[in-house]
Amino acid sequence: MQEELKKSVCDANIELQKHKLVIFSWGNVSGIDRSAGIVVIKPSGVPYDDLTPDKMVVLDIEGKVIEGTLNPSSDTPTHLELYRNFKTIGGICHTHSPSATMWAQACKEIPCFGTTHADNFYGPVPVTDIMTSEEIHENYELNTGKVIIKRFTGLDPMQMPAVLVANHGPFTWGADPAAAVEENVVLEQIATMALGTITINPDQGPINRALLDKHYLRKHGKNAYYGQTRG
Amino acid sequence: MQEELKKSVCDANIELQKHKLVIFSWGNVSGIDRSAGIVVIKPSGVPYDDLTPDKMVVLDIEGKVIEGTLNPSSDTPTHLELYRNFKTIGGICHTHSPSATMWAQACKEIPCFGTTHADNFYGPVPVTDIMTSEEIHENYELNTGKVIIKRFTGLDPMQMPAVLVANHGPFTWGADPAAAVEENVVLEQIATMALGTITINPDQGPINRALLDKHYLRKHGKNAYYGQTRG
Amino acid sequence: MQEELKKSVCDANIELQKHKLVIFSWGNVSGIDRSAGIVVIKPSGVPYDDLTPDKMVVLDIEGKVIEGTLNPSSDTPTHLELYRNFKTIGGICHTHSPSATMWAQACKEIPCFGTTHADNFYGPVPVTDIMTSEEIHENYELNTGKVIIKRFTGLDPMQMPAVLVANHGPFTWGADPAAAVEENVVLEQIATMALGTITINPDQGPINRALLDKHYLRKHGKNAYYGQTRG
Amino acid sequence: MQEELKKSVCDANIELQKHKLVIFSWGNVSGIDRSAGIVVIKPSGVPYDDLTPDKMVVLDIEGKVIEGTLNPSSDTPTHLELYRNFKTIGGICHTHSPSATMWAQACKEIPCFGTTHADNFYGPVPVTDIMTSEEIHENYELNTGKVIIKRFTGLDPMQMPAVLVANHGPFTWGADPAAAVEENVVLEQIATMALGTITINPDQGPINRALLDKHYLRKHGKNAYYGQTRG
Repeated sequence: MQEELKKSVCDANIELQKHKLVIFSWGNVSGIDRSAGIVVIKPSGVPYDDLTPDKMVVLDIEGKVIEGTLNPSSDTPTHLELYRNFKTIGGICHTHSPSATMWAQACKEIPCFGTTHADNFYGPVPVTDIMTSEEIHENYELNTGKVIIKRFTGLDPMQMPAVLVANHGPFTWGADPAAAVEENVVLEQIATMALGTITINPDQGPINRALLDKHYLRKHGKNAYYGQTRG
Repeated sequence: MQEELKKSVCDANIELQKHKLVIFSWGNVSGIDRSAGIVVIKPSGVPYDDLTPDKMVVLDIEGKVIEGTLNPSSDTPTHLELYRNFKTIGGICHTHSPSATMWAQACKEIPCFGTTHADNFYGPVPVTDIMTSEEIHENYELNTGKVIIKRFTGLDPMQMPAVLVANHGPFTWGADPAAAVEENVVLEQIATMALGTITINPDQGPINRALLDKHYLRKHGKNAYYGQTRG
Repeated sequence: MQEELKKSVCDANIELQKHKLVIFSWGNVSGIDRSAGIVVIKPSGVPYDDLTPDKMVVLDIEGKVIEGTLNPSSDTPTHLELYRNFKTIGGICHTHSPSATMWAQACKEIPCFGTTHADNFYGPVPVTDIMTSEEIHENYELNTGKVIIKRFTGLDPMQMPAVLVANHGPFTWGADPAAAVEENVVLEQIATMALGTITINPDQGPINRALLDKHYLRKHGKNAYYGQTRG
Repeated sequence: MQEELKKSVCDANIELQKHKLVIFSWGNVSGIDRSAGIVVIKPSGVPYDDLTPDKMVVLDIEGKVIEGTLNPSSDTPTHLELYRNFKTIGGICHTHSPSATMWAQACKEIPCFGTTHADNFYGPVPVTDIMTSEEIHENYELNTGKVIIKRFTGLDPMQMPAVLVANHGPFTWGADPAAAVEENVVLEQIATMALGTITINPDQGPINRALLDKHYLRKHGKNAYYGQTRG
């Protein structure tokens, strides 16, 4: 069952390595079939070179394994919490990609310093609260999802397809598993450039609202005019 | 028509990826046939691996599409404004190459810190003014060209074949599309080295005028003596 | 004799180059057969491309060469001192990998800034004391081992499989030669990210104890639940 | 004539690209046959991919072209001045390798922060004075050599096989052209690590004399004990 979803999740996981977002087995991508209520995710701790679609783990949205003999990613409860709350997303990617992780470790949001950022993220990339000992001791991975959801109060996850979990690293998402990985690639690039920006000019502020709107909205939504399809 | 120009523009766009100036479809190169009044540019949002000469878009210098079924790059009005004002250039390149973009995002010109810079750019690489809301709301891409032209008052674009658009990224140009890309490669390298320079010595000033003249003029103009042709 | 160990040590040395931990011949990996009291190590100054298992040097734990015509790594006395004192380790890796070496040269421990670090190292990665002239003049390589051992008073080398020798660079270790190299790869990544973290936020402190415990212990020890085997 | 030297100079120039010390044609390597009084150097402005031994330019030590139809590197007078004064060197390499150039542009010597540095350079890597307008206007390339020679008063070029020309970049040298390139590779690595070191700890001082002597002298001179030959 779910052969197509398993293949797209497997392919997206393999992409992590090609884009240098991961070393060893540090990262995982999942996808969801909303109509079937089925989530497919990478098995835990398996190297990318060994991944095949049949090794993907199939679960229901509460985390019950439906198919697959391997343990799902230890981050599975985080993915499921995001799918339950972000109803419009179809894929999730979690890595410790270096530049995004630097910002997450510094517990700082990434300000929107330029149009590269504005083309993809509609505002600063948010960072979560630092998790409390209580949130860590019990149901840690589920609570990781909960601190993300809490941080997204008032934010549209499709306009802000990335978050930095404080002390940890990024989660990104999109319409499908491949899109989730692509958002991580973009996030990594803007995180690298933001670090350089503040090194050159520690007082640099974010771009103004008009430029943010122009760039985000020329690529997204009904008035988009970038690319070969018009909004 | 314009088979040769289409091929050189296509090749130059493909070079962007090889030189790691772009990820995804983030960058575009164009070329102009001055005698025919024809501009050729990359189609919008098409990955570099899919580019072929026949996919290039052919326009007149006012932006009317003459040949090609794909939408031209959304940055086309910027390119055209540069061609209309910089009468000596034959190719334009626009990317978000990381180090040059860091300086553009920091809204700082790149000082001439060394001979690598002086070999290619005859002074600090200028940064434009930050665009106003009015410039952004209407005819944004055309106005991007206009703020560049305004910044180049008193500058010779062939002696300074690069600009940083504030909050955005670099445009470079040259005698033809390939030369425009080469200037972006050089710009990226000097931007990287300038960032390191101010990290080591925040008070470092630019090189003196004599050294700037010596290096720029030994490579350019009638008294050049670098390479296999002599000025 | 020791064909298997020689092959694993040779392979682990060759891995150094693949992971970009070394240039030229700057790094060495060894392994130990505890039951036989035999250590196998890279020959000194031989390029990785020329390494074959039969070129590995076989010694007893006091450093007497048992087999092999080449000189052992000049760092051999350091390796032996670690094997004599860290009874649980089976392989040692020494490189001058750039980011870890930056911290070693800055004579600073690497604080635990995030879960990537906590997944692998159970606390800050320690830095040794600066060696005295006396320690340097005589038996320098042996004394390098001794300053490491001194620094590990109260630390479990299997929970902290890395050290930074001040003014020098990292040593890492693990259950076998391949694991020792893997720890160096991880160390290099967390050293890179820690440098970015303090650049973004110079006041950033380490993660809290609960998060350190959660991440380290979900991967190590009897209650581990990461990967395909459960603690 | 000089087929062997032309081949070794050509090979060494091609190595520049493999080690990522250069882009385009930015760098040149030469070699000298002391007994014949012959210097061989890269032709000016020729891409590395097009280099063959027969394109190398053969000169006498005063700079008179003896063989070859191409113009020699514009930096030839610098090379010749070094050969005339540093009697023990057999090859010279000049590049704008990024990290070494950052230090040269910052007009700062590279302090000896660790054993990687001490293994190869017997003290801080010196930076020249900033050249005066007079030195730049006339015989610039010759005077570049002269400011290097001036800076090396009291220094042994074989113990310090590198210099940073202020506002410019590195020159390195060695027993032959390949060794000169190898010194540039090492210099680039230590320049990168030194930048990271001062970023982590701006107050970091150099290593002590005992450690410098130990590392330099265990690899060089009559008491060397690194590698497969013993001093």
